[in-house]
Amino acid sequence: MQDRLLSPDPAQRRLARSLYERARGLPLVCPHGHVNPRLLAEEPYDWGTPVDLLIIPDHYIFRMLYSQGISLEALGIPRKDGGDIETDHRGIWQTVCDHWHLFRGTPTGVWLRDELRDVFGVTEKLNSANAQAIYDHLGERLATPEFQPRRLFERFNIEVLATTDGAADSLEEHRAIRESGWRGRVIPTFRPDAVVNLDTEGWRAHIDRLSIASGIAIHDYRTFITALEVRRGFFRSMGATATDHAAVSAYTGWLSDGDADAIFARAIAGSASEADAARFTGHMLIEMARMSVDDGLVMQLHVGSARNHNPTIFARHGRDMGADIPLAAEFTRNLKPLLDAFGSDPRLTLVLFNLDETNYSRELAPLAGHYPALRLGPPWWFFDSVNGMIRFFDSVVETAGIYNTAGFNDDTRAYPSIPARHDVWRRVSADWLAGQVLRGIIDEEDAAEMIVDLAYRLAKRTYKLGEA
Amino acid sequence: MQDRLLSPDPAQRRLARSLYERARGLPLVCPHGHVNPRLLAEEPYDWGTPVDLLIIPDHYIFRMLYSQGISLEALGIPRKDGGDIETDHRGIWQTVCDHWHLFRGTPTGVWLRDELRDVFGVTEKLNSANAQAIYDHLGERLATPEFQPRRLFERFNIEVLATTDGAADSLEEHRAIRESGWRGRVIPTFRPDAVVNLDTEGWRAHIDRLSIASGIAIHDYRTFITALEVRRGFFRSMGATATDHAAVSAYTGWLSDGDADAIFARAIAGSASEADAARFTGHMLIEMARMSVDDGLVMQLHVGSARNHNPTIFARHGRDMGADIPLAAEFTRNLKPLLDAFGSDPRLTLVLFNLDETNYSRELAPLAGHYPALRLGPPWWFFDSVNGMIRFFDSVVETAGIYNTAGFNDDTRAYPSIPARHDVWRRVSADWLAGQVLRGIIDEEDAAEMIVDLAYRLAKRTYKLGEA
Amino acid sequence: MQDRLLSPDPAQRRLARSLYERARGLPLVCPHGHVNPRLLAEEPYDWGTPVDLLIIPDHYIFRMLYSQGISLEALGIPRKDGGDIETDHRGIWQTVCDHWHLFRGTPTGVWLRDELRDVFGVTEKLNSANAQAIYDHLGERLATPEFQPRRLFERFNIEVLATTDGAADSLEEHRAIRESGWRGRVIPTFRPDAVVNLDTEGWRAHIDRLSIASGIAIHDYRTFITALEVRRGFFRSMGATATDHAAVSAYTGWLSDGDADAIFARAIAGSASEADAARFTGHMLIEMARMSVDDGLVMQLHVGSARNHNPTIFARHGRDMGADIPLAAEFTRNLKPLLDAFGSDPRLTLVLFNLDETNYSRELAPLAGHYPALRLGPPWWFFDSVNGMIRFFDSVVETAGIYNTAGFNDDTRAYPSIPARHDVWRRVSADWLAGQVLRGIIDEEDAAEMIVDLAYRLAKRTYKLGEA
Repeated sequence: MQDRLLSPDPAQRRLARSLYERARGLPLVCPHGHVNPRLLAEEPYDWGTPVDLLIIPDHYIFRMLYSQGISLEALGIPRKDGGDIETDHRGIWQTVCDHWHLFRGTPTGVWLRDELRDVFGVTEKLNSANAQAIYDHLGERLATPEFQPRRLFERFNIEVLATTDGAADSLEEHRAIRESGWRGRVIPTFRPDAVVNLDTEGWRAHIDRLSIASGIAIHDYRTFITALEVRRGFFRSMGATATDHAAVSAYTGWLSDGDADAIFARAIAGSASEADAARFTGHMLIEMARMSVDDGLVMQLHVGSARNHNPTIFARHGRDMGADIPLAAEFTRNLKPLLDAFGSDPRLTLVLFNLDETNYSRELAPLAGHYPALRLGPPWWFFDSVNGMIRFFDSVVETAGIYNTAGFNDDTRAYPSIPARHDVWRRVSADWLAGQVLRGIIDEEDAAEMIVDLAYRLAKRTYKLGEA
Repeated sequence: MQDRLLSPDPAQRRLARSLYERARGLPLVCPHGHVNPRLLAEEPYDWGTPVDLLIIPDHYIFRMLYSQGISLEALGIPRKDGGDIETDHRGIWQTVCDHWHLFRGTPTGVWLRDELRDVFGVTEKLNSANAQAIYDHLGERLATPEFQPRRLFERFNIEVLATTDGAADSLEEHRAIRESGWRGRVIPTFRPDAVVNLDTEGWRAHIDRLSIASGIAIHDYRTFITALEVRRGFFRSMGATATDHAAVSAYTGWLSDGDADAIFARAIAGSASEADAARFTGHMLIEMARMSVDDGLVMQLHVGSARNHNPTIFARHGRDMGADIPLAAEFTRNLKPLLDAFGSDPRLTLVLFNLDETNYSRELAPLAGHYPALRLGPPWWFFDSVNGMIRFFDSVVETAGIYNTAGFNDDTRAYPSIPARHDVWRRVSADWLAGQVLRGIIDEEDAAEMIVDLAYRLAKRTYKLGEA
Repeated sequence: MQDRLLSPDPAQRRLARSLYERARGLPLVCPHGHVNPRLLAEEPYDWGTPVDLLIIPDHYIFRMLYSQGISLEALGIPRKDGGDIETDHRGIWQTVCDHWHLFRGTPTGVWLRDELRDVFGVTEKLNSANAQAIYDHLGERLATPEFQPRRLFERFNIEVLATTDGAADSLEEHRAIRESGWRGRVIPTFRPDAVVNLDTEGWRAHIDRLSIASGIAIHDYRTFITALEVRRGFFRSMGATATDHAAVSAYTGWLSDGDADAIFARAIAGSASEADAARFTGHMLIEMARMSVDDGLVMQLHVGSARNHNPTIFARHGRDMGADIPLAAEFTRNLKPLLDAFGSDPRLTLVLFNLDETNYSRELAPLAGHYPALRLGPPWWFFDSVNGMIRFFDSVVETAGIYNTAGFNDDTRAYPSIPARHDVWRRVSADWLAGQVLRGIIDEEDAAEMIVDLAYRLAKRTYKLGEA
């Protein structure tokens, strides 16, 4: 297990191990993720049960059980209508352990195994027989002072942790962390999807919240833009170095001022169409690039998920229930209007994330290997896995090099899994580099630099998190 | 050759061999294929010449020779117009052997080599010099009692063999097999494409045959549906556990009752358009899922082939001539209406087959990793190959696990190649699992279970063929 | 380094090395590339500085530097407006060496390293410290008689080198080479894109040049076709064995005579639309296949690049500046009209090149594994790399075999990199074959033939360059 995720070839494994050793102790740079800042704002923090921590918030786990016929109610996932769900967390844990074989060969299985072992000291494989004893053990550990989130932050050696926050968010928890005297660096990320995508459920209410938060009464397109600029300034003042945007496709395209005004007016009036929403998002992505050129915030774009694919689950349990399914994507034509405007501007950094792996070698690496503004985010979501990472390296590096990538981010809401995820990346990177050395493509001197770049420096540099 | 298809790495090969040994002797479960049931209904069965057995029915072989300029006539492939074709089977065999180098590196080459060696005892590589001697040898073997199909069935250790049969098929051969006293389990599969796809050549005649077979005079949409239900009941009574459906795309969408009636009426009147046919197929796929929910038949869907791409060959020789070419496919949006209706219904099992490998990691694994009804069929047709299988595992398992796959099926009409095909799957599975163990992703205990699941249990369970 | 690009597995490496040894000394067959024939027509030829030779003409190199914020002006790339650019080639070379780490893991890095070592005797890795000394060394070598292009041609063991030439080109350099008494075989390739694609900048002027070159006054579609036929005859008389065509998509489709006339008339009148241009190209591709059936010229088709994606760079520096980005492609439907007409005609050889790797296993290998006229070109442009070649073999060979491929071509304008590129192909081929042998898919006897086919015979045969 010491050499886990490394190639079976003895020479490659030997070299990979020595490269991994260079990366292993490096601090964790976490420029994109979904950890709730409340964890680090409240002290003491109450984790709840092991199921509250490990199962209920983790759609990677419960979607797999659901796919084999176990209802979300049986796993304790809350219903929007307040309907009955299982509340016996011991029983839920037993169910998970009874079906643990489903995770054989999956990254979820690897992450949880590594996390249980390295963070909680659980060395046995989960099964029906040991479920209750392990549940007890986890409960005990969570109650100890050393499992308080800030102690874990230090133990994990996190250098910086970025959260993801709505445009109207008060960032109260971030303020509380700053004012607590604790020295951990936790920064917000500006994610305005709920106000930028006109088809967001409850868009009007989000706009009202943005008006209040910004102190700008939003009544038309112009005040909307001003409010966003104000909020970006506030986020920057709270330490943010980046924004984040999600879109179904990579479509971008300018609207005339008149069209932007008219569409926004229709949205305010509650009469914007689906086409309006798509065009508005495509326009706002360019606007956001324009603001990034102005204020220096790194722009992230996550493309290609059909959200809430299962209407029954969405109606019953809401969003983020493991029912988001990727779509084919296109970047060469869709991103052109944005790139025409700002792709060659050295003041812009635009990090692209993608769920359609065919784009890597065909479109994304060629684009990133040309445009100064572009960087490629690491393999995302379904692909932050051993094979996903190998395919990413094999598809991207020959055309774009590693220096047009953004290094790694863990993109997780599962706080205690952070070290396990970085460890997977560092091991796979080391092994991939070792393979390159043994094939004579790079030399050991190059590899020794590249492993540190991949594990640490590239993320830090791309996201402007300090000298690297 | 004992370790064929296993990794060259000594440690991986050693472990793969021991995993393979667990799978090697397991019975063959064959839930989907195209063996003619007549082989097993008639005793004695006359195989004809080696060319009748090995070349003329095998489009994998003759398409490759055609691609290098050898006409189908020269290979003895019948013409629809009864035109002249080569009838000297010795000469045809010589031609094949003269060009055997074309199959270097192809699964066709591997299957035939393994089949000739393991079933027929031919250990030499085919070439111009040994062609006639091998032809003689094959002819002699085929004439012996131990090469009778039922004896091969037993020798191959086939536990169950499903054929593929039209909706109006009498299943006379299946009845004959049952009544023969022989104990081999041979079951039909309900494949109603010819009546469901309105643009099938001779659709009207197929409907008439369905009327006769079902005893329902089909004159409108409602009687059509009833006739299908009647026939499904008959197939079930003859042992069927599954249906099979082919479509150019994965498009599904309900028609209103009125639209379904109207399109069907146009089809009866001979005036249905191409768009009618596409919409009707999309509707009938959901209807078929509905019927599967009712009667428990496992539903299979094969998507993505542009049939009969070469008009000259189609006009001269008809369908299944090696000129079917894959198309890009889409599932996330196309399959949604069907999944909205039945994707979460535990009574449905829907097995998806696909010719566009980009869908595996992007759409199919995420869908199967969520929807309880979905299972992923093994790599199909152009991809039931060593690389196809490796890519399938690497693309699918991380997101869907192996327990949302349907294990293996050989999908072949080449009866004596069945063991060779299962052997390729079992070897590749064992080697892939060994790689996972050596990389520390799974442990040996997991791998020992998974090889049996992949080789035997998953197919048996998915297709409801008995306790596994 | 002796075993560079070979697998780390000792058994595979040993076998790969022995296969590579069979290929290493074979002559280089170069049936497609962009070397300027002037190099071989003038003697003595003045190479200019090392930067003139290695940097300014090589968009693989300068696009990567541009992607990291270095302007093309700083790299000495000429501006269309004659604006200021860096003219200190020593300084430019220093800049390149200062950023050499960007090429870690890229084929560009491998080619240049191998070229510098094997052609120029530079064994150190480029860096800031050694930049000037290496610049001096390169300059000295370029000035020696043995670095004259014809001497390199002989030293490289080039058997035949095809250039790429416009339809109206005088082929004066080719004539000069022939008449010089030097025995190197340098042949032209007929590439009529500038007159076939109606949306080419300056199309009308290209037509006028074609009128002059052909001696046919082009005033309508018919005279245009005649002029092309005349020029093809001239190219053949100058040794050409092939044509080459580039198109954004693989769309083909006949126009009626009336439509072809009308579109051509609109083009002459300067009023052809974008749709006209697309339809005309689709028609002309079939016309070109028809002419190839008549005159025997091998037809090449390069599909899928969005040219000049960056408008700023295009306006400032023109075309071929590293800003061409691939697009998703489709062949099954698009190529059908051409294949319906000539795909089964043994007189046609159509070699397909492609920038969308998803097409290989899904469309191209199935098409090439059926149609007698089709051959698959080697991985092109962004994919003439170690991974690109491995993916090509793994995606194509199982379905099409190697005998429906066209072997290798280097497709380069960087003359001294030719041996390095063939060497990459030969090493990767040898290693891939060794892997096939060790997995028991082919035997050593097969592999020994296949390495010679891949390295030499397939290219020679496909392009009708003599008995192979």
